Amino acid sequence: MSDQRVVYLPPRRPKDECGVFGIYGAERAPQIAYYGLFALQHRGQESAGIAASDGQRLKAHRGMGLVSEVFDRSLLEGWESHLAIGHVRYSTTGSSSASNAQPLVIRYRHGRIALAHNGNLTNAAALRDALESRGSIFQTTTDTEVIAHLVAHQCGAGLEAALVAALAQVEGAYALVVMNEHGLIGVRDPNGIRPLSLGRLGDAWVLASETCAFDIIGAEFVRDVAPGEMVIIDQTGLRSRQALPAGRPSLCVFEYIYFARPDSNLDGRNVHSVRKALGAHLWRDYPVEADLVTGVPDSSISAASGFAEAAGIPFEMGLVKNRYIGRTFIQPDQGTRTAGAKIKYNPLRKVLEGKRVVLVDDSIVRGTTIRQIVRLLRDAGALEVHLRISSPPYTNSCYFGIDTSAPEELVAASKTVEEIRRETGADSLAYLTVEAMAEAIGLPADRSCVACFTGEYPVNIQGAHRKLVMEGEENRD
Amino acid sequence: MSDQRVVYLPPRRPKDECGVFGIYGAERAPQIAYYGLFALQHRGQESAGIAASDGQRLKAHRGMGLVSEVFDRSLLEGWESHLAIGHVRYSTTGSSSASNAQPLVIRYRHGRIALAHNGNLTNAAALRDALESRGSIFQTTTDTEVIAHLVAHQCGAGLEAALVAALAQVEGAYALVVMNEHGLIGVRDPNGIRPLSLGRLGDAWVLASETCAFDIIGAEFVRDVAPGEMVIIDQTGLRSRQALPAGRPSLCVFEYIYFARPDSNLDGRNVHSVRKALGAHLWRDYPVEADLVTGVPDSSISAASGFAEAAGIPFEMGLVKNRYIGRTFIQPDQGTRTAGAKIKYNPLRKVLEGKRVVLVDDSIVRGTTIRQIVRLLRDAGALEVHLRISSPPYTNSCYFGIDTSAPEELVAASKTVEEIRRETGADSLAYLTVEAMAEAIGLPADRSCVACFTGEYPVNIQGAHRKLVMEGEENRD
Amino acid sequence: MSDQRVVYLPPRRPKDECGVFGIYGAERAPQIAYYGLFALQHRGQESAGIAASDGQRLKAHRGMGLVSEVFDRSLLEGWESHLAIGHVRYSTTGSSSASNAQPLVIRYRHGRIALAHNGNLTNAAALRDALESRGSIFQTTTDTEVIAHLVAHQCGAGLEAALVAALAQVEGAYALVVMNEHGLIGVRDPNGIRPLSLGRLGDAWVLASETCAFDIIGAEFVRDVAPGEMVIIDQTGLRSRQALPAGRPSLCVFEYIYFARPDSNLDGRNVHSVRKALGAHLWRDYPVEADLVTGVPDSSISAASGFAEAAGIPFEMGLVKNRYIGRTFIQPDQGTRTAGAKIKYNPLRKVLEGKRVVLVDDSIVRGTTIRQIVRLLRDAGALEVHLRISSPPYTNSCYFGIDTSAPEELVAASKTVEEIRRETGADSLAYLTVEAMAEAIGLPADRSCVACFTGEYPVNIQGAHRKLVMEGEENRD
Amino acid sequence: MSDQRVVYLPPRRPKDECGVFGIYGAERAPQIAYYGLFALQHRGQESAGIAASDGQRLKAHRGMGLVSEVFDRSLLEGWESHLAIGHVRYSTTGSSSASNAQPLVIRYRHGRIALAHNGNLTNAAALRDALESRGSIFQTTTDTEVIAHLVAHQCGAGLEAALVAALAQVEGAYALVVMNEHGLIGVRDPNGIRPLSLGRLGDAWVLASETCAFDIIGAEFVRDVAPGEMVIIDQTGLRSRQALPAGRPSLCVFEYIYFARPDSNLDGRNVHSVRKALGAHLWRDYPVEADLVTGVPDSSISAASGFAEAAGIPFEMGLVKNRYIGRTFIQPDQGTRTAGAKIKYNPLRKVLEGKRVVLVDDSIVRGTTIRQIVRLLRDAGALEVHLRISSPPYTNSCYFGIDTSAPEELVAASKTVEEIRRETGADSLAYLTVEAMAEAIGLPADRSCVACFTGEYPVNIQGAHRKLVMEGEENRD
Repeated sequence: MSDQRVVYLPPRRPKDECGVFGIYGAERAPQIAYYGLFALQHRGQESAGIAASDGQRLKAHRGMGLVSEVFDRSLLEGWESHLAIGHVRYSTTGSSSASNAQPLVIRYRHGRIALAHNGNLTNAAALRDALESRGSIFQTTTDTEVIAHLVAHQCGAGLEAALVAALAQVEGAYALVVMNEHGLIGVRDPNGIRPLSLGRLGDAWVLASETCAFDIIGAEFVRDVAPGEMVIIDQTGLRSRQALPAGRPSLCVFEYIYFARPDSNLDGRNVHSVRKALGAHLWRDYPVEADLVTGVPDSSISAASGFAEAAGIPFEMGLVKNRYIGRTFIQPDQGTRTAGAKIKYNPLRKVLEGKRVVLVDDSIVRGTTIRQIVRLLRDAGALEVHLRISSPPYTNSCYFGIDTSAPEELVAASKTVEEIRRETGADSLAYLTVEAMAEAIGLPADRSCVACFTGEYPVNIQGAHRKLVMEGEENRD
Repeated sequence: MSDQRVVYLPPRRPKDECGVFGIYGAERAPQIAYYGLFALQHRGQESAGIAASDGQRLKAHRGMGLVSEVFDRSLLEGWESHLAIGHVRYSTTGSSSASNAQPLVIRYRHGRIALAHNGNLTNAAALRDALESRGSIFQTTTDTEVIAHLVAHQCGAGLEAALVAALAQVEGAYALVVMNEHGLIGVRDPNGIRPLSLGRLGDAWVLASETCAFDIIGAEFVRDVAPGEMVIIDQTGLRSRQALPAGRPSLCVFEYIYFARPDSNLDGRNVHSVRKALGAHLWRDYPVEADLVTGVPDSSISAASGFAEAAGIPFEMGLVKNRYIGRTFIQPDQGTRTAGAKIKYNPLRKVLEGKRVVLVDDSIVRGTTIRQIVRLLRDAGALEVHLRISSPPYTNSCYFGIDTSAPEELVAASKTVEEIRRETGADSLAYLTVEAMAEAIGLPADRSCVACFTGEYPVNIQGAHRKLVMEGEENRD
Repeated sequence: MSDQRVVYLPPRRPKDECGVFGIYGAERAPQIAYYGLFALQHRGQESAGIAASDGQRLKAHRGMGLVSEVFDRSLLEGWESHLAIGHVRYSTTGSSSASNAQPLVIRYRHGRIALAHNGNLTNAAALRDALESRGSIFQTTTDTEVIAHLVAHQCGAGLEAALVAALAQVEGAYALVVMNEHGLIGVRDPNGIRPLSLGRLGDAWVLASETCAFDIIGAEFVRDVAPGEMVIIDQTGLRSRQALPAGRPSLCVFEYIYFARPDSNLDGRNVHSVRKALGAHLWRDYPVEADLVTGVPDSSISAASGFAEAAGIPFEMGLVKNRYIGRTFIQPDQGTRTAGAKIKYNPLRKVLEGKRVVLVDDSIVRGTTIRQIVRLLRDAGALEVHLRISSPPYTNSCYFGIDTSAPEELVAASKTVEEIRRETGADSLAYLTVEAMAEAIGLPADRSCVACFTGEYPVNIQGAHRKLVMEGEENRD
Repeated sequence: MSDQRVVYLPPRRPKDECGVFGIYGAERAPQIAYYGLFALQHRGQESAGIAASDGQRLKAHRGMGLVSEVFDRSLLEGWESHLAIGHVRYSTTGSSSASNAQPLVIRYRHGRIALAHNGNLTNAAALRDALESRGSIFQTTTDTEVIAHLVAHQCGAGLEAALVAALAQVEGAYALVVMNEHGLIGVRDPNGIRPLSLGRLGDAWVLASETCAFDIIGAEFVRDVAPGEMVIIDQTGLRSRQALPAGRPSLCVFEYIYFARPDSNLDGRNVHSVRKALGAHLWRDYPVEADLVTGVPDSSISAASGFAEAAGIPFEMGLVKNRYIGRTFIQPDQGTRTAGAKIKYNPLRKVLEGKRVVLVDDSIVRGTTIRQIVRLLRDAGALEVHLRISSPPYTNSCYFGIDTSAPEELVAASKTVEEIRRETGADSLAYLTVEAMAEAIGLPADRSCVACFTGEYPVNIQGAHRKLVMEGEENRD
């Protein structure tokens, strides 16, 4: 019917992010964790899990899929626990493994602990080598298991001390929530690369990757856990200690740009508002005459509306996103005209026809989808398509918990802006500068992690290239 | 932990809409139908089905769930057919029944036919009584089965003639797609209450409830099927006939207000643009001083942005919707502070705090959710909440394919606007008038169906109160 | 690894048998039906279903799979009914269809009825043609739907009278259990080809295809329903009428030979005892010098032990059957030495080695499996293999509810006993004569249906060759 | 309806047995492992798994359920491996855990290994304590993980040496199959408590818990692996070494009595033949005047037929077992007359009525089911029921891989034979003596493990009472 080559669209953005949650001191803690994870679901759809304790027994359930698929009422009903942690993990493409689902529950000399981790250790492979040379065995490919081993290798009795000692050996990014039968610990890496917030629900304490998890359960935001800080919550209340000397504060800016939910606040800044400011700066620095502004839904809507507001150009819904993309969707074959991007996005001809369009996107990683989207806009009658990216060129791989493509797949790593423009087919293309981005966020570049844009990593990444891949573990469920 | 009563939110809107699709003359017709149904998925998530023919054999597969759940590649691969129809059906609350899934496939004296139907017959119960008194048996509770019986009772040989004769007995709303081994027929009721469009994909003809299904497969929109028109597509090409004398054109305005996808065009009008105009008229007629305008996502975003644009008040994302509400979600218990609406919507405090807010919603049916949403906005710091509804008060049940609540559940049927305002807790409340709505849509009220707002039904609804309920059929799969 | 051709074994025996169950007057009738169907599970593993009524509402649930898979506790718990019927259907190979699952529940002019049917109508296609010419539509390929139509076409009000009138038009075999909201009816065809027994459980009445269903629920056997008899059970108690003039009594002898459970009694004769007698007659008529007797498990064990007992030759377990053959078992490829029969049966070398073996099987249909089994015995060291079949040569297709292969696939239809012997590789082969079989069963051949052995059908089979196939219905669930 | 208390029958026998399989040198090794596991399915239905290597990469797949449920063709098709191991695990009652499924695949300093284990270590808890005090962490509750840790803690490079050193620290019973990317190792504990046989399939070597796994794949039995022997199979062929000094040979007699398939040969003795001999000795020592002998199907059929043959009393099928007991079967409530045992067994009244019956069972563990079965026989008309048990009184818990009930639940541990007889309601009861059993098996009691009958354990069981329970791990999948 057609000789047009069609390709199914992989997710447009980095993966391997995770979300963590913890609660101490509430009746029905696992049920509350369920809703907390539900609010964090955007941070990971591959697997979900909850561990809980009634002070005596530590139970856990983990599974592949969404929170609502992994848990049903009957499963949570028996758990009369006041203490729980939870985890959601990003969906990868098929080699995902049930044995990597978290929380990781282990038994060691001092009892049982459960760990939920968001982040990535840059020296995990080296640590694993060292642990293996001491006789340790590994059953997953997660960094979390490395941390568990390090905890278990400490001599002292207390989980708190052991965790501090373990983390002293670790480099990289982590927001970690750990529990044993009796208490809950939250800790963030010395640079605070991955977010972790502290909240209060009545007398209970809550920890979560993002504040939207507090909102859903009606908890109050208290403060962010500080870089290198450890909070210990048990029957004596909450204690805080500087577990590790704080390094340069380096909150991941990509949380603002793409990952976090717009209704979350990170480091005191609302994500939606930040994105609007990014859009406004984009207009300020790269204005263009146009009839309307649109954004790639859903992630770029905030930035696009900020651009439009600053520009005084109408913001318009130029693309409608199909809400029913399932995990088992059949990819179009060659021989149908159904281009990959069309499955997901439909351009609004009546809106676009004969118009000069500004298309705002939050970032360009490989550049394959945006090219198709530009073409969809043109096919729908857009006279001009001006691409505006609400972040700088993405040139470096992330080693702190975001599984971006390899450097050679990052289009901005090897191509100039003009080359990328030509490839995407846009009439003009502009990225924010790192400085403008920092200004828009209100967070100086030297107080955040902008390594994916600059290559200046806040943490030593020697050895981070070795991944904890363990192929035999694939496809286990 | 809390004595606050929590209630899980049922779907906010009417249900029982369906989507239909048909294609003749394309290789891989069932595969194309799959993508067409995928684009129509918003019209029904309860069940999906495809019937197809290679000119000799009519095959069908139907199942409960989303299109992507009911079909996998292996299932469609064997089907080398040039002719296919498909159907999606709305998700009802539990008593949904596998035996009601469509297309309905029957064998009758002249072979096999498959039928896919969107709409509701107002004289279905009476027709069924008459058929039963002639000895007919019923295995489903669908109107579609009534039509099938009527077709089978005609004496002549041809499907086309039999269908015309059958529909002559039928009252109500229907967009119907029917096939036998050899050809495809699409027909719309004399008033054209439910939409049906005709498109072209290369040499193939396509029928669909909405034009967004043409976009996804790369088909061109040709025209809408006219009220009472029947199009017959087979190896001789496409023929059209006025199957039934056209009545007063009465396209359902609720398609514009809520049902249809914003990227679809109905009767030549783009749905998103219509919704913006509805919002603009709402401002024109009921202006209010405010700091920002927001809408209930996703259905009210277009209207809200139209309101904002007309008002010159900034449009803001005041509510973030959770995208992962699954069908098996555990409802919150009493004893958690998780109010029902909070599961689905999170207000953006940073946006709302200290602001006078206009909240646009497309309609109020029972009024339970909007009350919770108004409260969420206030709890998030909104100083004032002005509710603007982009349609008139919903006062009458629909008998044309939309399963709204019974009249006594429609809050506007028994309460004044002021009473509803008080119930919702809004500072002000205004609805569009029928006239303003008609003007905004560009479709005179006497050329559309506005019965849910006026009680003036374009078709006799005597007997429409009797539903084809057949309780024994529940829970079959 | 090997060039030996391997073939997966299809089921060794005819399929398409079904089991029916009915109960009136017991608390928890659907739960009791569940156990009754469980006892009848050997009669059908493709689908299962239960319909029930509390005197007001008729409910039903049906599904693909075993009784224990289709129903779970929660499903049955809500059903407070005193009246229920149930059905199990045989597993066919893939084109099985959810829409054929029974009980069939229909609505007709006088309300709702549910039908569960075991048997086959020989004039179903003709009846369907007639019904179609009067305007009837068909949604399944079951005879049951034909009966439902005939019932609905009767003018009188009562179900009983309508059913009698409907069955007067029907030819063939049926054991039918029918209910409406108020009562239960059981009826058997005029020749009594398919079995149906009546039992009592306290004050309740029970109907079942086999008496083993009475045993599991603790019911007492009362008597068999007579050929052409209808029993009507409602709040006034049980009434019996001769619904149809009794024909020649013709209970299917294959129920004795293979289908029925050994612990069931048919027409007063215990199936296991009958099978032993068949084995004993086989020895009497075809003795052979041998060291041991064995049977193909499980169906031929009774006959083999009867042979052994009569012969005074030790009965031995010569073949062990794997109990875990699942429906999704992966068939062995060429290139493994795993012959098809070996998956299912393992010969006991220690028992067989150096021995002259009598192998008893209940019948030979196509002859493919028995050839493999004979070879297995030889490979395990059997010196001689003497095949003894506890029934006559199977030469004619059954049209009364047993889906045997087409005549051309029946090995005995075209080959002599000596030819079959050579094909199977046995040292000797003998079948029972029809006379000896009748004598062993204690049921004269002219008072039973032995058509598969003689071709003398008790009922006109003109037109029985046309099947109600409706290919479009395949694969629906 | 009835006041009779009904109880669902738990499995009648000990659980927690497992089956192991290994193959080196065959094309399609994982596919062959699939059939091998299928033949061993009776040893475990909870979970199944296969690990495989093509010499470079070690892959694994494990899951809950039967072999045929865990694997489908597509899953095995990609695996072009010449080396594979497999494992089946017994079904426990609900707290079964996906993370305990085997083979266990680990990464350690020298690469990856997979382990499949049948047995139980008596010093596992102590070893785990020691490992934990050195910093090891545990993620499962299996002994296999303890062995993996011990292997990883050895300093030398070779898997073979490390495994030998690891097993030197281990006490208890094990038949272990281990692989890395390059080779296959099989090893049996010094007492040879659990069975492991070596076979040949063309040029390939095969290891399996039972010889029936050789039969299904067409492999030749070579010999049993000797107590304490290790066989190492790789590209250089097969080597054998005495890994551990052989202790007193102590093959578990319960394998003969109940566990193993009748078609397997253990230590050169066919299991079916042994069971017949046990039955014959039972008659010799405890004769009784009776009309027929029957056995509890399926496990006691061999013994019962041996008894009958020796006694010259007819063997009869007195009980018919339902073959469709599923894992999700609904247990009967109080208020139905459906006694638990009746669900599973139906007595054959025509066979039993008016008869003096010998009922042979292989063992009595708790005594609850046999009491119900005796009652079933009496209710079916048996005049006398003489219970004969083809093993001695079961008085001691097993610590070698069979999860019998706690000692206080073993009826013979606290009651005399006469008390048990009274409890079961039998007219007489006799058990085999240990000596007679040994004689029948042909294996002196001092060369086998008969500890469950005598309390004389071949291995130190100090500390065996502590189980590796890790409750938090429950319900993970």
